[in-house]
Amino acid sequence: MTEFCNDDFLLNSDTAKKLYHEHAEKMPIYDYHNHLSPKDIASHRKLDNLYEMWLETDHYKWRAMRANGIDERYITGDAEPREKFRMWAKIFPDLIGSPLYHWTRFELKRYFDIDECLCEENADDIYVRTQLMMREGKFDVISLLKKMDVDTLCTTDDPCDSLEYHRQIAEDESIPFAVLPSFRPDKYLDVNGPDWKSNCEKMCRKYQTEDLKEALKRALDFFCENGCRVSDHGFSVFDYSNDTFRDLMLYLGELYHERNIVMQIHLSPIRNNSYRLFTSFGPDAGGDSIGSPADIPAINRFFYDLEKKGCLGKAIVYNLNPADNEALATLVNNFAPNVQYGAAWWFNDTYRGIRNQITNLMETASLARSVGMLTDSRSFTSFVRHEYYRRILCGMIGEMVDEGMYPDDIEHLGKMVENICYNNAKTFLNLE
Amino acid sequence: MTEFCNDDFLLNSDTAKKLYHEHAEKMPIYDYHNHLSPKDIASHRKLDNLYEMWLETDHYKWRAMRANGIDERYITGDAEPREKFRMWAKIFPDLIGSPLYHWTRFELKRYFDIDECLCEENADDIYVRTQLMMREGKFDVISLLKKMDVDTLCTTDDPCDSLEYHRQIAEDESIPFAVLPSFRPDKYLDVNGPDWKSNCEKMCRKYQTEDLKEALKRALDFFCENGCRVSDHGFSVFDYSNDTFRDLMLYLGELYHERNIVMQIHLSPIRNNSYRLFTSFGPDAGGDSIGSPADIPAINRFFYDLEKKGCLGKAIVYNLNPADNEALATLVNNFAPNVQYGAAWWFNDTYRGIRNQITNLMETASLARSVGMLTDSRSFTSFVRHEYYRRILCGMIGEMVDEGMYPDDIEHLGKMVENICYNNAKTFLNLE
Amino acid sequence: MTEFCNDDFLLNSDTAKKLYHEHAEKMPIYDYHNHLSPKDIASHRKLDNLYEMWLETDHYKWRAMRANGIDERYITGDAEPREKFRMWAKIFPDLIGSPLYHWTRFELKRYFDIDECLCEENADDIYVRTQLMMREGKFDVISLLKKMDVDTLCTTDDPCDSLEYHRQIAEDESIPFAVLPSFRPDKYLDVNGPDWKSNCEKMCRKYQTEDLKEALKRALDFFCENGCRVSDHGFSVFDYSNDTFRDLMLYLGELYHERNIVMQIHLSPIRNNSYRLFTSFGPDAGGDSIGSPADIPAINRFFYDLEKKGCLGKAIVYNLNPADNEALATLVNNFAPNVQYGAAWWFNDTYRGIRNQITNLMETASLARSVGMLTDSRSFTSFVRHEYYRRILCGMIGEMVDEGMYPDDIEHLGKMVENICYNNAKTFLNLE
Repeated sequence: MTEFCNDDFLLNSDTAKKLYHEHAEKMPIYDYHNHLSPKDIASHRKLDNLYEMWLETDHYKWRAMRANGIDERYITGDAEPREKFRMWAKIFPDLIGSPLYHWTRFELKRYFDIDECLCEENADDIYVRTQLMMREGKFDVISLLKKMDVDTLCTTDDPCDSLEYHRQIAEDESIPFAVLPSFRPDKYLDVNGPDWKSNCEKMCRKYQTEDLKEALKRALDFFCENGCRVSDHGFSVFDYSNDTFRDLMLYLGELYHERNIVMQIHLSPIRNNSYRLFTSFGPDAGGDSIGSPADIPAINRFFYDLEKKGCLGKAIVYNLNPADNEALATLVNNFAPNVQYGAAWWFNDTYRGIRNQITNLMETASLARSVGMLTDSRSFTSFVRHEYYRRILCGMIGEMVDEGMYPDDIEHLGKMVENICYNNAKTFLNLE
Repeated sequence: MTEFCNDDFLLNSDTAKKLYHEHAEKMPIYDYHNHLSPKDIASHRKLDNLYEMWLETDHYKWRAMRANGIDERYITGDAEPREKFRMWAKIFPDLIGSPLYHWTRFELKRYFDIDECLCEENADDIYVRTQLMMREGKFDVISLLKKMDVDTLCTTDDPCDSLEYHRQIAEDESIPFAVLPSFRPDKYLDVNGPDWKSNCEKMCRKYQTEDLKEALKRALDFFCENGCRVSDHGFSVFDYSNDTFRDLMLYLGELYHERNIVMQIHLSPIRNNSYRLFTSFGPDAGGDSIGSPADIPAINRFFYDLEKKGCLGKAIVYNLNPADNEALATLVNNFAPNVQYGAAWWFNDTYRGIRNQITNLMETASLARSVGMLTDSRSFTSFVRHEYYRRILCGMIGEMVDEGMYPDDIEHLGKMVENICYNNAKTFLNLE
Repeated sequence: MTEFCNDDFLLNSDTAKKLYHEHAEKMPIYDYHNHLSPKDIASHRKLDNLYEMWLETDHYKWRAMRANGIDERYITGDAEPREKFRMWAKIFPDLIGSPLYHWTRFELKRYFDIDECLCEENADDIYVRTQLMMREGKFDVISLLKKMDVDTLCTTDDPCDSLEYHRQIAEDESIPFAVLPSFRPDKYLDVNGPDWKSNCEKMCRKYQTEDLKEALKRALDFFCENGCRVSDHGFSVFDYSNDTFRDLMLYLGELYHERNIVMQIHLSPIRNNSYRLFTSFGPDAGGDSIGSPADIPAINRFFYDLEKKGCLGKAIVYNLNPADNEALATLVNNFAPNVQYGAAWWFNDTYRGIRNQITNLMETASLARSVGMLTDSRSFTSFVRHEYYRRILCGMIGEMVDEGMYPDDIEHLGKMVENICYNNAKTFLNLE
């Protein structure tokens, strides 16, 4: 029996161990898509306790607690932080096979050097010990990110954002990594949404024009001046037959191409599905889930049209419904190497989901140039997800060598792993 | 090489063996969804031979025979029972990897203590030996169910059913388990079907009202008086944009909520696909298969609307098309813990299908409270499917412990396994 | 560690080794669907070098090169053959997990006895050595096919084709295998396409009738006279609600039934997705990918209608989107044993894809009568794909025996494997 979660966790062969410990582990992190708070970074926010670190905003954990019968009072309700933490600890041993189990385990180990498995019995003790460490040690968010050897972060920002915190961070010489804004204009593309008009008017006012396209252009230029390298789009439905939508998307594609901005497209979440959660808490309460498969021909047509206009730039496409995995993984290669198949996203960010994404990349011959992993998280300690991904990647490659499916060419594989973990993203996102 | 189908079948680690033999194996069975005949139970029907036990009504086996080239005469035609059995035996060795292979093997072993692998050569001998045992021994259906330690059964019944057999069973003190009716009103919800009107009229007459809703309510109350705990719905297409359908479903949801009835929803079979089978035999001839993926947003909207009306009760959702696995497994958690993701159903009730369902539950952190397995079968010996499920469950958990993906906490895991196998269903279906 | 790609590649148990080396390996090849050039066969074309053998027309490799950043000049552009080959070799070590890696490896070994792993450093040397062998040895396409023990080939041909090369081949006594035409009338069924009318007029002229149906019938009869056993259809969308399409398909189904022609249906590719590739190169440039899932009820309805008309003959259905795997694998069994679930096609022709197809056949009890593998390729050396399939098949069965999931009945399994590899196709396609 392999010891639980030891140093060689998920590395079941010598090849895997070498690839991870001699190659993957040492690479810095380029986290090109997350939802970290620029304000928290700018202010060197200090986290005080595990509630703040883990439970305050993490709808992944909220869902797990609900699934295991915890009352909403202890999730988004008015219970004390410590009570909420105790409830989290109580259901924690039930999370077998959930990525939350491994992430949490990594976070306790990497940030606090705690080996115990969290449970109801040790919840208070762990809460108190970690709180003491956090109050006495280096647990401001800058230190947490430095600890993970973060090189560059791309946060997710509204085109109307002032980007003041990004500027503040850029000027702060004590912050040793880049924090770049991402251009996320979803609110201005939701052409059938009830708030579309008022949102557009707001942006037009801000950028002093009556033309939505002009406003988007000015906003993007403003983002570019502040270091923006990537945009981000999320669509429950990619409604390409809608003329206004199509026109705006093609326009943005052109702008991105001119500015060498990588366009990210996230497909098919359905949001705010619970009346109870949405009315009591609002969006991002954990009432989101996987929607129907995406309109594959429409997405293809979008890139075709950009190519025809001569302005297909770089793009990364992520699907939430795994039924789309193969269709999308092959679609992007129609436009290779400009368009990439993105990392296992959200509900797919699991042991199986990551393996599936890597297998899809392998089958379509795209693994070696993949831009690898990202956190997509609000949490400052979620960067252990890069470790999880890297272990799975090295584990899979090691398996293939072990089973005689690939020659024992550690030199080539080591370089490939380093590229996937870091170098490729740097190149693809134009940071070299 | 592991001996075929021995006592540790599918249990490839010490942890798995412990979990199965010390925990799963001893739990009674709460089979909350099946198609057993209440009449057969009430009458303590005695089965005479393997044809009656296995081939008379089992369209799973019929399909396997057709796939392997057996003439319809030996399937649903006029051949003698023993000839039909011989044909089943003839193709049996070809069923490698089919759950039918393992189920049949279990049934021969558990009910008759026969270790031989069925084939054409031993078909007659096995037929005769088992017939002798069945004529001399305890092979009435009550004994068969007792042997499997059945605690509670929920059959599937039309709202117009008299439930006379259920009452007869309830009064029969020699039957040591509960047999509860399930409310299955599909015929009255098929609003675009050719027989909808006449079916509704029939029910209205029976319940002496001109209002369909009132009739449904009276029927449900009648079912509740007879011990009903669950309803059941099957939809080829969940046509929620149809006003009549939506109105009826929301009304039923309200009734179920008031009465604490668990609503089961089975999604996406397509039925009677073969003209030949349907015209020669009728429904349930084995001409059914998996339909297109379900309308995920519509299903979500249904639960949202029930929540908004304040009457979202408990529900279990099953999908037939595995392309829906992840979308549904995450959808139900928008409404956790009221709504559960159901067991691997019908064509998914395979080694891989069960593993996928368990993996989906793990990834969404819902495994520990899962209501586990059910037979969904017409067959009185199909209860070995619970054993199959339990072995796979324990095997998977054992693998995770062995590979260092979960700590070696047999105490917690043992309790969890017991809950999944039995206790959770009892709680969720309000039988405690 | 298992040595890379040795004689027991993918055969991880004694059972697997026995099944492969004593049963699968010796069977001839019945390749009932490919895109080989009848002209090349008729002319005993000699291949001169690895560029001609591998890169001239293989859009699988082109896609891999694009995915790995090779400039189009070295793919479909004007670079020299040897430069193109060098670029292929350069990215080759990056193709871990792609079937291209294993196919290429097999081709070097089986045709040239080369054990080295191709890479940039040995590219020129391998190019020169193999060119010498090809110039001096037996590297005409007849010899290549003989080496693989090909028994029968079915090429893919337009109904307007003269079939002159097929006749030439049939008369050529030095060609020791059959080369049969397949009837592929896609151009005449694309009822909404821009060229449909003109295509139909052309065929009507050729077959001297004004009636499209009569022309199709005459064409099919002409094909049958020339040995045709199978037809082939490819649909991006199976538009069965279109009256003209439905009428033509039912008519063809009737013709096939009368003539005992096996109908092949390939579902859901989307083609010519890249504006750049299509305008610069034309179709089949590697800009094709997986479309949305198929319309499962429509496909079902088609077979139902044929059955109702009394003319459901034999058919094989292939899906490109793996999200359809289970729906189609169960659909065909509604019409068993006439309709079969086809081999893992195109983007599914991978280690995982083949395993999934075999698992689907196992789960639906259809493996033993499966018609096995085909190449679907333009390449004369692609026949190693049969070896890849056979190794995977034997490997999987071996695993099941080893894990105690099937008894150690090598005699039965050996016969089954032989049937799947060759005999079943021969029977199903009426060649016995």
